[in-house]
Amino acid sequence: MSKSRLEAFSDGVLAIIITIMVLELGLPAGDKFGDLWALGPTLLGYLLSFFFVAIYWVNHHLIFHDVETVNLKILWCNIIWLFIISLIPFTTAWAGRYPSAWAPVTVYFADMALASVAFHVMYYLIACEHGGKKSFRLDLRSIVSLVVYTLAAGVGAFCPIAAYIVVAAVSLWWIVPKKKIKKALEKPAESVEKIESDKSES
Amino acid sequence: MSKSRLEAFSDGVLAIIITIMVLELGLPAGDKFGDLWALGPTLLGYLLSFFFVAIYWVNHHLIFHDVETVNLKILWCNIIWLFIISLIPFTTAWAGRYPSAWAPVTVYFADMALASVAFHVMYYLIACEHGGKKSFRLDLRSIVSLVVYTLAAGVGAFCPIAAYIVVAAVSLWWIVPKKKIKKALEKPAESVEKIESDKSES
Amino acid sequence: MSKSRLEAFSDGVLAIIITIMVLELGLPAGDKFGDLWALGPTLLGYLLSFFFVAIYWVNHHLIFHDVETVNLKILWCNIIWLFIISLIPFTTAWAGRYPSAWAPVTVYFADMALASVAFHVMYYLIACEHGGKKSFRLDLRSIVSLVVYTLAAGVGAFCPIAAYIVVAAVSLWWIVPKKKIKKALEKPAESVEKIESDKSES
Amino acid sequence: MSKSRLEAFSDGVLAIIITIMVLELGLPAGDKFGDLWALGPTLLGYLLSFFFVAIYWVNHHLIFHDVETVNLKILWCNIIWLFIISLIPFTTAWAGRYPSAWAPVTVYFADMALASVAFHVMYYLIACEHGGKKSFRLDLRSIVSLVVYTLAAGVGAFCPIAAYIVVAAVSLWWIVPKKKIKKALEKPAESVEKIESDKSES
Repeated sequence: MSKSRLEAFSDGVLAIIITIMVLELGLPAGDKFGDLWALGPTLLGYLLSFFFVAIYWVNHHLIFHDVETVNLKILWCNIIWLFIISLIPFTTAWAGRYPSAWAPVTVYFADMALASVAFHVMYYLIACEHGGKKSFRLDLRSIVSLVVYTLAAGVGAFCPIAAYIVVAAVSLWWIVPKKKIKKALEKPAESVEKIESDKSES
Repeated sequence: MSKSRLEAFSDGVLAIIITIMVLELGLPAGDKFGDLWALGPTLLGYLLSFFFVAIYWVNHHLIFHDVETVNLKILWCNIIWLFIISLIPFTTAWAGRYPSAWAPVTVYFADMALASVAFHVMYYLIACEHGGKKSFRLDLRSIVSLVVYTLAAGVGAFCPIAAYIVVAAVSLWWIVPKKKIKKALEKPAESVEKIESDKSES
Repeated sequence: MSKSRLEAFSDGVLAIIITIMVLELGLPAGDKFGDLWALGPTLLGYLLSFFFVAIYWVNHHLIFHDVETVNLKILWCNIIWLFIISLIPFTTAWAGRYPSAWAPVTVYFADMALASVAFHVMYYLIACEHGGKKSFRLDLRSIVSLVVYTLAAGVGAFCPIAAYIVVAAVSLWWIVPKKKIKKALEKPAESVEKIESDKSES
Repeated sequence: MSKSRLEAFSDGVLAIIITIMVLELGLPAGDKFGDLWALGPTLLGYLLSFFFVAIYWVNHHLIFHDVETVNLKILWCNIIWLFIISLIPFTTAWAGRYPSAWAPVTVYFADMALASVAFHVMYYLIACEHGGKKSFRLDLRSIVSLVVYTLAAGVGAFCPIAAYIVVAAVSLWWIVPKKKIKKALEKPAESVEKIESDKSES
C-alpha cells in the first residue's frame, strides 16, 4: 500500500478526533462566567489533548516523510495507534469531569503512554524497513516522554496537578522539532527547486 | 467516475464512522475503576467494531487496486455498502448496552453479515467489469466469514460470548492478507520503480 | 479557485453530514425488537436522507465534471447549498421523532426543496460560465423533482406517508443518470487512454 | 512541510467544525412550529458561525495561495488558529441557548476576535516568509474586522442584537474578496493555460 492512502486516512481520523472532542465538552450549566469557570478542568484537558493530538499529526508526517511504501506490519501498527488515539476524547471527557480522581487520571495518562509506545514501535518498524535496524535510535526526548507518560499513568493520581504540568511541559518540548528531522523537512523544497531548475536547464 | 473520488469519499466516511463510535461510548457513571469496568462490554464492542471497519478499509483498497474507472453498478453498490457500515456505530452502541440480549446481538451481527454480503457483491461486480466473470472466485476465508456472520446473526444470541469470540477470530483472520492479493499489493512499488528506471534510461 | 479544493471540501462536508446523522438516531429504549420497531420512522428517515445526500454527492461531481476553475458566485452558491444540506441531520431527526406532525414534515421537505433549488442555481451558474446561458436546460427530471419537493413541503403534511413515498420515488429516479451526463462520465476514461496512446505513439 | 498537507488537514478540521455544529442544535422540544421558533436564536447563531467558518476557509486558501513550503512558526500558528476555531461550536451552542446573557455573548465574540487575531498573525508570518516584512499591510477591512470583533467581545453584551448585526455585516463584507487577492486567484487558470499552450507549441 502506498503511504499516501495511509497518511490521508490517518489525517482524516486525527482531524475528526481533534474536532469531536469539543462535542464532549458539554455546555456550561448556566449563563454566568462562573459556570464557564466550573468547566475549567474540562477545557484545560481539551487544550492539552488537542495539542497532544496535533503534535502527533506533525510527527506522524515526519516519520513517514522518507517512506514510500508501507508493509503490513506498519499498516496494522498504525491502525492500532489510531485506535489508542481514538480513545483520547473518551479519556479526556472522563478526566475532565473528575480531574483529580484516581481512575480517570490514571486512564487518561495510560492512554497517552500507550499512544507514545505504539508511535515509537511504528517508528522502529519504519526504521527497520528503510534504513535498517541500526538507523533507529531512541533520542533523549523520546525516552523522557515515554518515562514521563508511564510515570504519570502510574503515580500521577497522587498529585494530578503536578502530573498535568509535567505532561504538558514534555508535550510542549515536541513542538520544537529535532534538528535532524528538521533538516529532512527542508529537503523536499530543495529537491522541488532542483527538479524545476533541471527542467528549465533542459 | 474515476475510482479516486469514490475511494476518497469512502475513506472519509469510514474514517468518520470509525471515529464517531467513541462518542457513543458515553462516560462511566462515576470516577472509580469499577465504573469503567461496567462499561467493559461497550468498550469491547467498540474494539471489535473499530477493527471490523479498519479491516474493510484495508480490503476496500485491495479490491479497488487494479480498478481504473467505476461504473454505476459498482458506485451504487459501494454507497449501499457504506450505508450498512454507517449503521455499525448504532448497532455497536445498542449491543454494548445490552451485550447479551436477543435483539441487539442479532441486529449487531446481522449488520455485519449484510456488510460482508454487500462487500462481496461489490467485489463480484468489480471482477465482472475487469477480469470477466470467471476471475471471481469466493475463497475459503470469504465463505467462512459469510457463514460465520450469518450464523452469528441467526443463532448468536443463544450464546453471545461464543458468538463474539468466533466473530472476532474470523475478523482477525482478515488482518493477514491473501498471498495473491499481497502480491498485487507489492506490484505498484515495482511498477513505479520500473517507470522511473525507464525514464532514467530514456 | 481550482475546482479540486471546492470538490474536496464539499466531499468532506457531505461525508460528515451523511455519517453523523446516525448519531441523531439515538438508541432504542430497551433491548427488544419492539424497541427497534419503535425507532422505525427514524430509521426510514435516515435511509431516505442518506440516499438523498448520496445522490447529491454523485450529481455534484457530474455538474463539476467539465469545470476547471470556479468563480466566486459558484463558490458561494456551493457554500449556501452546503449550509442547506447541513441542516438535513437536524430536519431528519425532528421528522424522525414526529413523523406525521405538521411542522417537522413541512420543514423536512422544505429543506429538501431548498437544497434542490440551490443545486439547480449552482448548475445554472456553471452552465453560464462554461457553455453559455443557452447550454442550461432544465430537463424533465429536474422540473419534476423541484415541483415534487415543493409540493411535499407545502401540502405533504396532509398525508405524510404518501409524501414520503413520492419523494423517495423521485429520489430513486436520480440514481439512474441522464444518458447525456452518462456519456460525459465515460469520456475521461477514453481521453486518458487517448493521451496514453498518444504518448506511446510519440 | 509542504503546504498541501497543512491545507488538507485544515480543510478536514474546518469541514468537521462547520458540520458538527448542527449536532449542538438539539431538537425542538415539541412538534409545533412554535417549538422551532423557540430555537430561533440557536439557528441564527448556527447560520452566523457557519458562514464565519466558511469565510475563513475561503480566505485560508487565499493567504496560502502563493505559499509553497510552510515553516514551523506558520505550522504552529495554524494549529493554534484551528484550536480557536474548534471552540466555535462550543461558544455558538452556549450563546445560542442564552443569546442575550453577558457571559455567553462575550465569550462568543471573544473567540471570534481571537480567531481573527490568530489569522492575521498567520498572514503576517506568511508575508514575512515570502514577500518580506514590507509586503504585509493591514487593509481597511482587516482593521475594521479586528476592531469590531474586539468591541463586540468587550461591550457587545450591553446590546447583543446590535452586536450580532454589526458582526454579521462585517463578516458579509469578507464574502466579496479584495481585488488584489482576486487577481491572484485568477492567475492559476492563466498559468495552467500557458503551460498547456507551451506544451502544444513544443
